[in-house]
Amino acid sequence: MTSADRTYDVIVLGAGSTGENVADVAVRGGLSAVLVESGLVGGECSYWACMPSKTLLRGSEAIAAARSVQGAAAAVTGEQDVAATLARRNAFTHDWDDSGQAAWVEDVGIGLVRGQGRLAGPKQVVVTRDDGSEVTLLARHAVAVCTGSRAAVPPVDGLADARPWTPREATSAQAAPGRLIVIGGGYVGCEMATAWQQLGSAVTLLQRSGQLLRGLEPAAGEAVLASLQELGVDVRLHVDVRSVSRDGDEVVVLTGAGELRGDEVLVAAGRAANTDELGLDTVGLQPGGYLDVDESLRVTGVDDGWLYAVGDVNGRRQLTLMGKYQARQAGAAIVARARGEEVDLADWSPFVATADRRATPSVVFTDPQVAAVGLTAAEAAEAGLPHRVVEYAIGGVAGASVFADDYAGTAIAVVDTEREVLLGVTFIGAGVAELLHSATVAVVGEVPIGRLWHAVPSYPTISEVWLRLLETYRG
Amino acid sequence: MTSADRTYDVIVLGAGSTGENVADVAVRGGLSAVLVESGLVGGECSYWACMPSKTLLRGSEAIAAARSVQGAAAAVTGEQDVAATLARRNAFTHDWDDSGQAAWVEDVGIGLVRGQGRLAGPKQVVVTRDDGSEVTLLARHAVAVCTGSRAAVPPVDGLADARPWTPREATSAQAAPGRLIVIGGGYVGCEMATAWQQLGSAVTLLQRSGQLLRGLEPAAGEAVLASLQELGVDVRLHVDVRSVSRDGDEVVVLTGAGELRGDEVLVAAGRAANTDELGLDTVGLQPGGYLDVDESLRVTGVDDGWLYAVGDVNGRRQLTLMGKYQARQAGAAIVARARGEEVDLADWSPFVATADRRATPSVVFTDPQVAAVGLTAAEAAEAGLPHRVVEYAIGGVAGASVFADDYAGTAIAVVDTEREVLLGVTFIGAGVAELLHSATVAVVGEVPIGRLWHAVPSYPTISEVWLRLLETYRG
Repeated sequence: MTSADRTYDVIVLGAGSTGENVADVAVRGGLSAVLVESGLVGGECSYWACMPSKTLLRGSEAIAAARSVQGAAAAVTGEQDVAATLARRNAFTHDWDDSGQAAWVEDVGIGLVRGQGRLAGPKQVVVTRDDGSEVTLLARHAVAVCTGSRAAVPPVDGLADARPWTPREATSAQAAPGRLIVIGGGYVGCEMATAWQQLGSAVTLLQRSGQLLRGLEPAAGEAVLASLQELGVDVRLHVDVRSVSRDGDEVVVLTGAGELRGDEVLVAAGRAANTDELGLDTVGLQPGGYLDVDESLRVTGVDDGWLYAVGDVNGRRQLTLMGKYQARQAGAAIVARARGEEVDLADWSPFVATADRRATPSVVFTDPQVAAVGLTAAEAAEAGLPHRVVEYAIGGVAGASVFADDYAGTAIAVVDTEREVLLGVTFIGAGVAELLHSATVAVVGEVPIGRLWHAVPSYPTISEVWLRLLETYRG
Repeated sequence: MTSADRTYDVIVLGAGSTGENVADVAVRGGLSAVLVESGLVGGECSYWACMPSKTLLRGSEAIAAARSVQGAAAAVTGEQDVAATLARRNAFTHDWDDSGQAAWVEDVGIGLVRGQGRLAGPKQVVVTRDDGSEVTLLARHAVAVCTGSRAAVPPVDGLADARPWTPREATSAQAAPGRLIVIGGGYVGCEMATAWQQLGSAVTLLQRSGQLLRGLEPAAGEAVLASLQELGVDVRLHVDVRSVSRDGDEVVVLTGAGELRGDEVLVAAGRAANTDELGLDTVGLQPGGYLDVDESLRVTGVDDGWLYAVGDVNGRRQLTLMGKYQARQAGAAIVARARGEEVDLADWSPFVATADRRATPSVVFTDPQVAAVGLTAAEAAEAGLPHRVVEYAIGGVAGASVFADDYAGTAIAVVDTEREVLLGVTFIGAGVAELLHSATVAVVGEVPIGRLWHAVPSYPTISEVWLRLLETYRG
């Protein structure tokens, strides 16, 4: 049964934070927009990623911060109430009920169709509802694919059948498993190993390479490795996982170095694009992979340029915050093109996602936190940019020593020596998450080093490391 | 007895952080420099201001942060160990022993003469040592007055004789007084009221006007007023102090609204320049007041321009961090002029203290913290700048709600509507101190609003309030 076709200016496939933002910008721009969603409105970030993972980590962080200050430490005589922490996490995810977000969608005048959407030719989407009924949606101007990504399960013998945890289960578990084996030492693996070890699990973290947090400055992975070990996590590097199986309630992981047994195994080994079931073939595209886009997030190779791919699904930067950023830029481009206005594709225009390449910020909420933006030294070298790397041990900053006794941390700045601007900055240490935006503004604003000398850090704060970095650069 | 004259390129009167930095820059620039100091090398900041005050406050802050997170709160079953906090403060001030700082001075090749220095004509300084002996110093290029300021004791009947605490006693006390009366609701009064109330005193705070933290956005004073009251501080506004006296161990404060009795009274009612005993009259200047300077911190009205006044003593911005900033700028100007090089006095040049007027950051370490940079709305209006004020309640930001349950805070941005840049930003809330530098970089860098949209805040952090401010501005 097909109900009557409905026409919108913009159809958005996927109502995660990225899709919500594309639709929101379209509606603010005077267009009509509809979201198509088969799962929860709000998506991974709200329910199975950023929000629950950070609430799992925050309590331990706050306790550690108090314990690290002589005088305050005496007040921390008890233990974290793990049940209360899990309850807090449940509250943040609204017990995985999306009615609040759905109400917001309605409030701001965005349409919502629940069901599985797929393209059925240019500007046409067919949605199959849970009850099997179908509705056809027609787009006047644009369709935006914002279906995101899912955890990739690597082709390890037996793994898919061993009921592994993905990040979804790791962020939504209602109790700490006794023994948790984590496969993958990227930011998800490191954060979840930290969280569950702190909440009572005995965690083993397996990483194929010799480095955690690859893609960030090597010092980040080294600091997090040391801290995980200090927390009691059994970190094993250079480990090749050969097979995974279930033996009763136990999970058995066979590695090149022997057998491991646990209660749960978390696979945090990358992502895969949610593009298999989108009907991409009906518009001449290949299903299953990431969608190639131009700087305004418009899919390349589609006649008349009506198809956009925004957020994780284009593979540019798989972070909630960058999905939302792309959504603002793509939404602005959709609105402008619908009005017949020119869309400037130059760097930093309102219609392009330049920060994807030049200034993507990220915070890994481990202990220490790792906050980074822009290019690492390795990326600057690879890009052939003239640069110098400046490092400073944050513990030498007065504000850091006030913040915590024996503060240990590192700041790393990558300076473009020709243009005398910052290409990237990494902060490693407790409480540096809020420090990052200063670097993001400096990188995005291309603020010259000479001018940054006038940006006086307040005192005594950890931010004073900025002054030390400038002094170190000056030599 | 006068020993033989000694000649240096630069003589610096006062070895606080400002003087240290002037001398350091001079020496790095190839000049010889000497510091003259009658007190502790390192000055107020190290021993009686920033460092001890923040260590007195940090323990309570860390405990409050843990208590504000459900799950973590359960771990905080004990009380702060006040003796341990005071011991930590003593460690940060090295028990008021400056041998470490004096060793640094020697290490970097700066001369140090301990004693009372005063000008004895152009480029000439006479130092009287503790033993009464004198030494005459001659400057080849410059003398920098960095003698700072002291607590001003207002002309209240009996106050000077009532042995009042100044900020020095308030930051160095070895026990919490039972009842502490604080006169003055500026940042020193508010911080010390917060600190000692948290450490066990019963504090009464008297403010002449109806507003705390004058000079900052009014919302800051309102938030701190509410929090002081919640802490149990007896805050009295519109209070006129008529006399202060001692009655045995008690201090008696007579106000227009009646009598108050306490164990100590802290006077935190402004500063006075340390220029009385500097021999300013020998070079044609008036002793006792603040010294007028040009943008390179050179004292105006002195022939040949050899005299500088840097830091509190010029009255521009009485903050440690700005004294050090001025020191870097003045030091660079001194070095350049000594080399016969041109000194560019345009805004933001390496030789001028433009941030004094345009981008002075400050953090008040109360609970909530108040972090501000640049112009307030009132200052923008007074300057006749076209502007719009944008406000956002920080509690609505996901990262803030993760940071603390029931997070309350406010962000206020003042936007220049003609140039589309930020004139000033104020953050009020827990844990915003490190957030400030993002605003400082934006204001100093004059980063256009359009570009700031590309500065994506990391998620979930309190920094996401930046996005909300931009959205609110866009309207």
